[in-house]
Amino acid sequence: MSLIDLLVGRPLKSSEERGEKLGPAAGIAVFGLDALSSAAYGPEAALTLVIPLGAAGIAYIIPISGSIIILLLIVYFSYCQTIEAYPTGGGSYTVAHQNLGVFAGLLAAAALMIDYVLTAAVGISAGVGALISAVPSLQPHTLSLCLAILLLITIVNLRGVRETGAVFLFPTYLFVATLFITLGLGLVKALAAGGEPEPVIAPPALQPQTMMVSAWLLLKAFSSGCTAMTGVEAVSNGVKAFREPVVKTAQRTLTAIVVILIVLLAGIAYLVRVYHIGATPPGQPGYQSVLSQLTIAVTGRGAFYYLTIGSILLVLVFSANTAFADFPRVCRAVAQDGYLPYSFASRGRRLVYSQGIYVLAFLSAFLLVLFGGVTDRLIPLYAVGAFLAFTLSQAGMVAHWKRKRGRRSRSSMFVNGLGAVATATTVGVVTVSKFAEGAWITTLLIPTIMILMISVRRHYDREQVETANLAPLDLSNLREPLVLVPILRWDKIAQKGLRFALILSADVQGLHVDCGEGSQRLRENWSRYVEEPTKKAGLPTPKLVVLKSPYRFIINPILDYVLELEKKNPDREIAVLVPELVVQRWYHYLLHNHRAAWLKALLLLKGNQRIIVINVPWYLSS
Amino acid sequence: MSLIDLLVGRPLKSSEERGEKLGPAAGIAVFGLDALSSAAYGPEAALTLVIPLGAAGIAYIIPISGSIIILLLIVYFSYCQTIEAYPTGGGSYTVAHQNLGVFAGLLAAAALMIDYVLTAAVGISAGVGALISAVPSLQPHTLSLCLAILLLITIVNLRGVRETGAVFLFPTYLFVATLFITLGLGLVKALAAGGEPEPVIAPPALQPQTMMVSAWLLLKAFSSGCTAMTGVEAVSNGVKAFREPVVKTAQRTLTAIVVILIVLLAGIAYLVRVYHIGATPPGQPGYQSVLSQLTIAVTGRGAFYYLTIGSILLVLVFSANTAFADFPRVCRAVAQDGYLPYSFASRGRRLVYSQGIYVLAFLSAFLLVLFGGVTDRLIPLYAVGAFLAFTLSQAGMVAHWKRKRGRRSRSSMFVNGLGAVATATTVGVVTVSKFAEGAWITTLLIPTIMILMISVRRHYDREQVETANLAPLDLSNLREPLVLVPILRWDKIAQKGLRFALILSADVQGLHVDCGEGSQRLRENWSRYVEEPTKKAGLPTPKLVVLKSPYRFIINPILDYVLELEKKNPDREIAVLVPELVVQRWYHYLLHNHRAAWLKALLLLKGNQRIIVINVPWYLSS
Repeated sequence: MSLIDLLVGRPLKSSEERGEKLGPAAGIAVFGLDALSSAAYGPEAALTLVIPLGAAGIAYIIPISGSIIILLLIVYFSYCQTIEAYPTGGGSYTVAHQNLGVFAGLLAAAALMIDYVLTAAVGISAGVGALISAVPSLQPHTLSLCLAILLLITIVNLRGVRETGAVFLFPTYLFVATLFITLGLGLVKALAAGGEPEPVIAPPALQPQTMMVSAWLLLKAFSSGCTAMTGVEAVSNGVKAFREPVVKTAQRTLTAIVVILIVLLAGIAYLVRVYHIGATPPGQPGYQSVLSQLTIAVTGRGAFYYLTIGSILLVLVFSANTAFADFPRVCRAVAQDGYLPYSFASRGRRLVYSQGIYVLAFLSAFLLVLFGGVTDRLIPLYAVGAFLAFTLSQAGMVAHWKRKRGRRSRSSMFVNGLGAVATATTVGVVTVSKFAEGAWITTLLIPTIMILMISVRRHYDREQVETANLAPLDLSNLREPLVLVPILRWDKIAQKGLRFALILSADVQGLHVDCGEGSQRLRENWSRYVEEPTKKAGLPTPKLVVLKSPYRFIINPILDYVLELEKKNPDREIAVLVPELVVQRWYHYLLHNHRAAWLKALLLLKGNQRIIVINVPWYLSS
Repeated sequence: MSLIDLLVGRPLKSSEERGEKLGPAAGIAVFGLDALSSAAYGPEAALTLVIPLGAAGIAYIIPISGSIIILLLIVYFSYCQTIEAYPTGGGSYTVAHQNLGVFAGLLAAAALMIDYVLTAAVGISAGVGALISAVPSLQPHTLSLCLAILLLITIVNLRGVRETGAVFLFPTYLFVATLFITLGLGLVKALAAGGEPEPVIAPPALQPQTMMVSAWLLLKAFSSGCTAMTGVEAVSNGVKAFREPVVKTAQRTLTAIVVILIVLLAGIAYLVRVYHIGATPPGQPGYQSVLSQLTIAVTGRGAFYYLTIGSILLVLVFSANTAFADFPRVCRAVAQDGYLPYSFASRGRRLVYSQGIYVLAFLSAFLLVLFGGVTDRLIPLYAVGAFLAFTLSQAGMVAHWKRKRGRRSRSSMFVNGLGAVATATTVGVVTVSKFAEGAWITTLLIPTIMILMISVRRHYDREQVETANLAPLDLSNLREPLVLVPILRWDKIAQKGLRFALILSADVQGLHVDCGEGSQRLRENWSRYVEEPTKKAGLPTPKLVVLKSPYRFIINPILDYVLELEKKNPDREIAVLVPELVVQRWYHYLLHNHRAAWLKALLLLKGNQRIIVINVPWYLSS
């Protein structure tokens, strides 16, 4: 246990929960990392699409970023209302479920789950991308680096939510500070130079133009750029984790996150344009991230550059943490409604929902391995889930206000309605423009997950119906069971089992399988050591049943006999008493057959309601 | 089951055993394959050592083969006597154990086990070596070929001994026939050409001389060549498998094997000498086996050549079968004396000792992988075990005759004594000359295996002492147990468990772990649905014990409570009745916690003599 303690911390009592609450400063780190760090891959994802346009492509980053910022503002106002209406946590799942019904809720849940898995995978892969930009020799180790970082994050999260806030506070603010300095400095230089600043070190030459601009290409660039907005819903989903007053603290946190994000997106778009910086082909030697090029152009390749890249690496990698904070919460909400296994709803030793953390870690690792840890290959799967969840959440809020009525409700309904239409349109655009590149995977996965969730609920419902019992204890027909004792030879183990059988019932049978050896001896011992003394004591005498086994099978004949006896005695319970030798060291198990264990397992598997297994252990002293 | 039936055949009844007996013709195939096929790698192993002597080295094959044939004859006469003295099977283990004591017996057993594993590995690797000689392009796939063949042999052997005899009859006799034809033809040509025959196709040029001849080098060559004798003991070990009259049939089989082997060794030595054929460096491209070169020199590269190589391949590969027939027999003999797990002594579905077959297959595969399937790297490990077993067997026979006394005994003692001295000397020579190349592994393994065997026996002895019971059934103090029923909520599963508990004892406690949810409800249900009706019926009322669990652990509090209760009631048995939900499909297990299974396992592991586990299953209808 001490290794586990060391890794994930001592167990926390349920009553220690109060301490695990967040203020806005920590809230920005825990719930904002994904949204903020999106600035590092969103614009780059859009720029990667316009690589074939050469130098001409860069100009399009301004209108693309502008559209994304407008979309972001619409979504922001929408979510502020959601937080107020759902102070106990208004994730897309809850809002859609409560206002639009089960189907919409499950759709939102499936979309969110996929979204969070991708958040974790993309955050890590983009962080490693930043590292490779600074240290190109690490490029061949991309995947190993991704997996090592994933492991680290998983362990940190298993320790619990408060400590993760503390761990991530410093890098988040360092990231915001260094980027603000870079952007501010670049802006001053650009204005001073009349919009044509001289880079300290020139960025790599742009690719020659190989394609004409088209609406389709710009649509795809916009779709990729939309990944910059993912993570905005995290705050509304996790309102419960905030300090009192919950609603205000959460809203303030969301406002801060969105303002910072808009400044970053706008600043990057402007500077990329005036410094003529384009994306480099991803997943290949020579790759350098857009932010790396930008920082070098503005400040040169000095200490500040490495500090900036370091903070980008940290914040991107840790942005995956948003997913680790939220994925388990969504799973828990779904599990509490019975659509996922109950284990997702039970808190682990550190008051976190451990099961969700394990599943998220596993799935992210799977995606990273599948796509070799290259961000650009993951991006097409990403935005569909996120925007689908946005849409369902806003649509749910519209239904919410519709039911409430009143004057304020109408304006609220308008805000959420606008959000719903805007995000729904984006879902359509993203799905169509990214379908071939990977959105089809998400489109297939969402219904699959929904079907799974519905089957889980069905199973639980049936179980509930079958086992529910609101009647008093049924005390009729309390009759002694028929007890069978499988016996190999007459020793203390057999005696212990037989003694217990005699306590339980007057109807006891010894059961022996004859494989040709030792049977005669057992028969003699039985009559001398069992039948005689019980007769003398006036107790009911257990009889010995010997089963022939020409094929030397031991367990099957016993199983068959038990099932037959059960059929012959439809009104009685059959207790199979299995005497078992328990050894002290694991390697001693190699020295014994495991017939007792097999017999128990098979009786459970092939048995039925009236067959009961009693295990009488015999401990060998060590 | 039908797939297993297809692979290894239908189960055989114990009474079908009689049919599984061998005559001399089949006996040569089953027990002689190893000895005969040794002719294909023994001389080559010796020749490989003299490669550095160039053309001059080949001459030394005559005295080396001569010494080996003399040694073989001594061992042959020795074993004929062993067969007569031990008609029920006189393997080295049995003979050494009975006549020289436990220690010598275990030494022989360890030596034999190692020997058989190497027989399997070397047989297969040498067979693949023959194949590579004929089809050089297969050289890179050496290891995969070895493992595929090992799998095939394992399956054939799991089908049972009679069928293996039939399968291997044809290739054995084809091998003997083709080699006899080659050797005879070569002899005629050599005599006709006055001892200097012209090869049909000249063998590859010999390596230039790089070393002077030394006694040490010749000793090493002799040690390697001795591997040609391995397998001679197989017949005496398996006498029991022969048809009546057992002794005569076995002796005739051994005689036939030894005569054929001597002809092969002598013929190969002579022809290699007159055709100037040397070994090629093993494990490298361009490798060609000595027998392949010889056949080409005598008959050319025609259809007969491929027939010969085919039969060598088959017989070498199948020679591993000797090990598969004998390794399980040795293990069984040792297991019957309690020095190996009993499972080695029980016959599987096809009347073979399946456990031994599995272990042998696994160990051979391990060796093949470790040494890349190259015969020459396996050879140094080989002879130590075989000759150690020879020595112990002969020495045991000396002790046997000494005890018998009488005139015939004295001459018999002399024969076996000569064998013992000759083989003991060989053990010394082989160990010293091959120590650095690999004999050290065998030298380390033998005592390790012996220590393991002794510990196994000790464990069984202690178990025997602790559980032996030759007293009548103890009927004192037959008191009802204290029954504990862990309960999560009041449902049909709980009711079923509680009903059974009430049948067993008047002293029943419900046990509930309070993690903050549902406990109050259970308390109310308990008083209404359990306490009231039992009181009304005049039955003893089970009380509900609620355990607090601040850390949300469920199983540990129950375990602690059970152990404490056990301490408080030193004179009673504590029965823990675990109600368990059994689902119909394996994937449904994902939907439920496995607390019942964990609790059962931990109670068994941490419990003690007075704690009994009763498992009352509840089956969900599917």
